[in-house]
Amino acid sequence: MNIEELRARLEEANQGHLLRYWDQLSDQEKLQLYNELSHQDFNEINEFYKTVMENVSAASKKLNDVIEPLPKEVCGRVVNTGPETLSQYNNSGLKKIGESRVAVLLLAGGQGTRLGVPYPKGMYDVGLPSGKTLYQIQAEKLLKLQRLGESVTGNSCKIPWYIMTSEHSKQSTQDFFQKHKYFGLQEDDVILFEQNLLPCIGFDGKIILEKPHKVALSPAGNGGLYRALHHNGVLKDMESREIEYIHVYSVDNILVKMADPVFIGFCISRGANCGAKVVEKTFPTEAVGVVCKVEGKYQVVEYSEITLKTAGKRDCNGRLVFNAGNICNHFFTLDFLKFVSEPSQERLLKHHVAKKKIPHVSDKDCRQTTQPGSPNGIKMEKFVFDVFLLSSSFAVWEVIREDEFAPLKNADTADKDTPTTCRRALLNLHHRYLIGAGAEFVYTDGTKISHIPSQKGEDEALFVESEISPLVSYAGEGLNELVEGRKFVSPVYINQDFTMDKPKIVDG
Amino acid sequence: MNIEELRARLEEANQGHLLRYWDQLSDQEKLQLYNELSHQDFNEINEFYKTVMENVSAASKKLNDVIEPLPKEVCGRVVNTGPETLSQYNNSGLKKIGESRVAVLLLAGGQGTRLGVPYPKGMYDVGLPSGKTLYQIQAEKLLKLQRLGESVTGNSCKIPWYIMTSEHSKQSTQDFFQKHKYFGLQEDDVILFEQNLLPCIGFDGKIILEKPHKVALSPAGNGGLYRALHHNGVLKDMESREIEYIHVYSVDNILVKMADPVFIGFCISRGANCGAKVVEKTFPTEAVGVVCKVEGKYQVVEYSEITLKTAGKRDCNGRLVFNAGNICNHFFTLDFLKFVSEPSQERLLKHHVAKKKIPHVSDKDCRQTTQPGSPNGIKMEKFVFDVFLLSSSFAVWEVIREDEFAPLKNADTADKDTPTTCRRALLNLHHRYLIGAGAEFVYTDGTKISHIPSQKGEDEALFVESEISPLVSYAGEGLNELVEGRKFVSPVYINQDFTMDKPKIVDG
Repeated sequence: MNIEELRARLEEANQGHLLRYWDQLSDQEKLQLYNELSHQDFNEINEFYKTVMENVSAASKKLNDVIEPLPKEVCGRVVNTGPETLSQYNNSGLKKIGESRVAVLLLAGGQGTRLGVPYPKGMYDVGLPSGKTLYQIQAEKLLKLQRLGESVTGNSCKIPWYIMTSEHSKQSTQDFFQKHKYFGLQEDDVILFEQNLLPCIGFDGKIILEKPHKVALSPAGNGGLYRALHHNGVLKDMESREIEYIHVYSVDNILVKMADPVFIGFCISRGANCGAKVVEKTFPTEAVGVVCKVEGKYQVVEYSEITLKTAGKRDCNGRLVFNAGNICNHFFTLDFLKFVSEPSQERLLKHHVAKKKIPHVSDKDCRQTTQPGSPNGIKMEKFVFDVFLLSSSFAVWEVIREDEFAPLKNADTADKDTPTTCRRALLNLHHRYLIGAGAEFVYTDGTKISHIPSQKGEDEALFVESEISPLVSYAGEGLNELVEGRKFVSPVYINQDFTMDKPKIVDG
Repeated sequence: MNIEELRARLEEANQGHLLRYWDQLSDQEKLQLYNELSHQDFNEINEFYKTVMENVSAASKKLNDVIEPLPKEVCGRVVNTGPETLSQYNNSGLKKIGESRVAVLLLAGGQGTRLGVPYPKGMYDVGLPSGKTLYQIQAEKLLKLQRLGESVTGNSCKIPWYIMTSEHSKQSTQDFFQKHKYFGLQEDDVILFEQNLLPCIGFDGKIILEKPHKVALSPAGNGGLYRALHHNGVLKDMESREIEYIHVYSVDNILVKMADPVFIGFCISRGANCGAKVVEKTFPTEAVGVVCKVEGKYQVVEYSEITLKTAGKRDCNGRLVFNAGNICNHFFTLDFLKFVSEPSQERLLKHHVAKKKIPHVSDKDCRQTTQPGSPNGIKMEKFVFDVFLLSSSFAVWEVIREDEFAPLKNADTADKDTPTTCRRALLNLHHRYLIGAGAEFVYTDGTKISHIPSQKGEDEALFVESEISPLVSYAGEGLNELVEGRKFVSPVYINQDFTMDKPKIVDG
């Protein structure tokens, strides 16, 4: 512990106040604070702060004047792509999966505060008939997709699963996977790594102390990915596995099609090094960022960065002009990931700034931690999509929201994105898969239930509940031989033992 | 009480079982049952039953083959209508309102069972800052609209409010309005009338007894309107007031623009005798009926009547082919209403059938009322939109869902159409009105809140709450002089005393 050297570095960076309680700390507290501070680059942090504060005042005013919609030639849409082309994309994606050239990378550094649980979101069970957590659903999708890939190439294959956690979520995530034996995946193929934390800074430019011996830190946004990739040996691991394509996604979308072969096939067909899956933004104030073009470069513009007038612009068909809603579903080639994770490139990504109420040590209050009533500083974040601007061959694939996007963000008291809406979204999708495969749903007395079940009246079945294990079907495929022409009474749970599952079925 | 004549009529109609407990009834029960039965036309009911059961098996199979989208020439869309045309529609509608030629007609016969309250939905308060009920919001919209109409013509005007209740809701609705002094409206201009009830019928064609002295009755659907209009003197009342146009709507849409002058002006400009306001249906399984054409006639096809394949058809732009989502918002000329309410025409409207679990008296169970476990009979209903097929000049006006449609259907445990989603829909709309009028929202420390407020992070204001009394603005108009260039801290409630309401405002 070289405290004098640290003190000198801090003084030079005008952050000397961080040691103001030093003489009153216990030995253990001293060690803790020293460890936290000694590996930080304060000049760099000061530079971040200076840049971000300059950008805030300058950039956003202009944005509404220079934002442009995506050029048609970079976009594809599932709703007007023919079945043959979709099948080509799917096969090309599955082939790469079967050759073990595809990895998935999960962004799971968040804390689930709005959901109101003290553990990572991936461990949440939204109340499905199966009781599965988000992590289990995702693990089983990978298991199934490996089998689908193998059926194309005839060889065994792997889809390594990289999971970026943060200080807040790493240990519990690791414990959870161990406890559940990685849900049948190989332990080696589930690779956890941690993203950096950045100090929070007061409006005076001074780093905030949360306790006398602890700096206020926060995850540096999911764009912390690129620094983490560089520092944690993840890119090397991908290289050693000869990965070519990486699908990056966030933990909270219960419908996420991990390593979606159609999306991968589409991006490959476009020769893209970077791609985004989007859903149509349908009303101006919808809280979703939009992929667009700004001064010649691709970018996600957050809903809070534009005026209502810009958000409300419509084309001659009445669709929103800025309608490519970002759902944090990205395709990258490994080459592109390596390129953007180089410090020389990563540095080009600007921090976004979020004014926050940051708990801080208070001298008035006997050096206890105080929760301020209004914002007292900023958190600096980068976002995973910031790298779009570095892409020379970008592609955007628009999918159907009801099939692919239902995020878990809030507790059930909210008006949207809750456990209840996620559960319904998944049950409805699986119901559509079964109808599409020729199943029929009936009431207990054998009367047919219409495809879109009636939601009227108190004494009818309000909903059909049907869940399909991802181990049986990744995205609705392979169900015909199981269910065609058969009659089902809700609730239905189709798992690998399905043919034995007689009590749920009414035949003939 | 001529019991022998009644018995003969019943025997003739093969419904003699309805008197099977007669000898065991008290005098009062006898009177009650007699009154219920004596005014029913059992041959007609038998005919209804026969027809409806024939139609069920025949009609629905064919429907998916013959359903057609609306022809372009009957449709208008707010999103691609220019501001000048919109203004023309608005002025033409306001002029008719100002001349007292417009009435509104509310369908409020439902019971709010799914919402889980024992009183009519109109009496529900979704938790707005003002604490207003749906009825109060609607009453105040009428008051304001009268003033807007008057400002166009220079004369005082009235918008009579016809409210169709049922046996279940009439008394409590009447009491509620009396208690609240009609929210400032003239008592004479709020006209309650009752729709008929129809007996429920078992699968054997026999009318069901709920109790030994009581027939199982249910409201005959909101299409019971036309019989009720004919029998209750409502059309005469409209005539005597020289009404020309009637806007019909249902009670549960918190954003409903009653007597919307733009919609009225649009329909007038098209020379329509019948019009429907719709919103775009955005995904195949959305539980909304669609306005379409079937064998040359206009019709609403319910979501449960079509297959998933039909519902999922898309045009070359990727929009659903059947996308004119019915929101129970209809325009009629008085002449058309008179025409379709004639028994000769009303009879052409077919009953829809709903299989239901109907509580019935059980001999096994000591003549107590029993709740069956599966459907044991049918309710026969007509719908208000059934008359579209009788229109020779039909028009459809598509509006923006977020501005005009947020129904209250379920309790807060559901995934949609709840008090919470309704409250947010209204608060968000009023927030947009204020932004559009040049207001600015700030945090308590004066920092600006973006137009589409951030919903990220636990320590920021998740939402802006702003409510505008309908007495101040009907649909966002007239706010500029009140709020332009001013700064507001959420929550904001803008009522008629607004300028005095200093504590909510931060100026400069």
